[in-house]
Amino acid sequence: MLTLFYAPKTCALASHIALEEAGATYQARRVDFASGEQTKPEYLAINPKGRVPALVTDRGVITETPAILVYIAQTHRARELAPLDDPFAFAELEAFMSYLCSTVHVAHAHRVRGYRWADDPAALEAMKRKVPESVAASFDLIERRMFRGPWAMGERYTIADPYLFTLASWLEGDGVDPALFPKVLDHRRRMAERPQVKRALAEEA
Amino acid sequence: MLTLFYAPKTCALASHIALEEAGATYQARRVDFASGEQTKPEYLAINPKGRVPALVTDRGVITETPAILVYIAQTHRARELAPLDDPFAFAELEAFMSYLCSTVHVAHAHRVRGYRWADDPAALEAMKRKVPESVAASFDLIERRMFRGPWAMGERYTIADPYLFTLASWLEGDGVDPALFPKVLDHRRRMAERPQVKRALAEEA
Repeated sequence: MLTLFYAPKTCALASHIALEEAGATYQARRVDFASGEQTKPEYLAINPKGRVPALVTDRGVITETPAILVYIAQTHRARELAPLDDPFAFAELEAFMSYLCSTVHVAHAHRVRGYRWADDPAALEAMKRKVPESVAASFDLIERRMFRGPWAMGERYTIADPYLFTLASWLEGDGVDPALFPKVLDHRRRMAERPQVKRALAEEA
Repeated sequence: MLTLFYAPKTCALASHIALEEAGATYQARRVDFASGEQTKPEYLAINPKGRVPALVTDRGVITETPAILVYIAQTHRARELAPLDDPFAFAELEAFMSYLCSTVHVAHAHRVRGYRWADDPAALEAMKRKVPESVAASFDLIERRMFRGPWAMGERYTIADPYLFTLASWLEGDGVDPALFPKVLDHRRRMAERPQVKRALAEEA
């Protein structure tokens, strides 16, 4: 049995959707950010980073969205959620996910988690002001150069799709008009219609 | 033939070392950041992100350090640079690398690339001031919880090792005393003695 530790409106949604897409046997366990549960000893014993997602397996805990997504794909091979037997195609998938975690998510995080990188209140405000620009720039690259269609990596649905969907759901909150990115927006609409996505969202609601 | 586009003192060193560890047939091609080569059309045609590393293969270009490192391991399986046949161990490796790219490298980047996330000069200075603290915090987690020894992931040398070595080589520049992290420091010393690391460093010098 897998246990996914998540909080609503975080990138943990990507792993949650992937578990549904994989047909995995799992339970989802909400971490209450409002009461700071992620900073308490019980949760830090699971994930010393104090963040979500964390996936508890019978061999131990996996953190970091790209790692969890690849693990889900590898342990549910029949669902073909990643090109596991093609090193080049797999590298392209890994590059897409790495861009999402280290550039797109990081740009977004400067809106409400700027305290990770500066203490001065004026600096936090300066970071917030730039988020619409930096997030839009990262999605512009996705729209123009990275997204292949109909799915992120092309003809086949992969673990990059729930990850892109999750981060694209933050666009309006970051002050970015999703209509600027018609491929990303269309992808988001099609993703939202999938029963697997609806189930994950319903469970987190 | 593989071609690695790199610039000295960047995270491209991790891929450079991994190519040496793999015994790969490759050439290393320096991108001249001083003249802004990474922003010119010729280079943007290779990597539209305008960054290094980029690995040109006979099937196309791979960007993002974690993706390049896994590709090198997968295409040089005999060198056993990653636990490719164990999904859980592979996920742990991916999690380590994801932490390096999305947390450690990002903390470091606020010292000289804060313009990615704010425009105000005072905010850039505020970011710089926090780098010693945020980088030290990320290495503290590595030292206490993530590093297994003698190599990053335990008994076996993996692609996480050149990546950790590369980021650990920035500690002094970020105002962090590496002596705070004796395991990381010892790892850095042992890495620096490897002929493969010496070759990569010599080629970039």
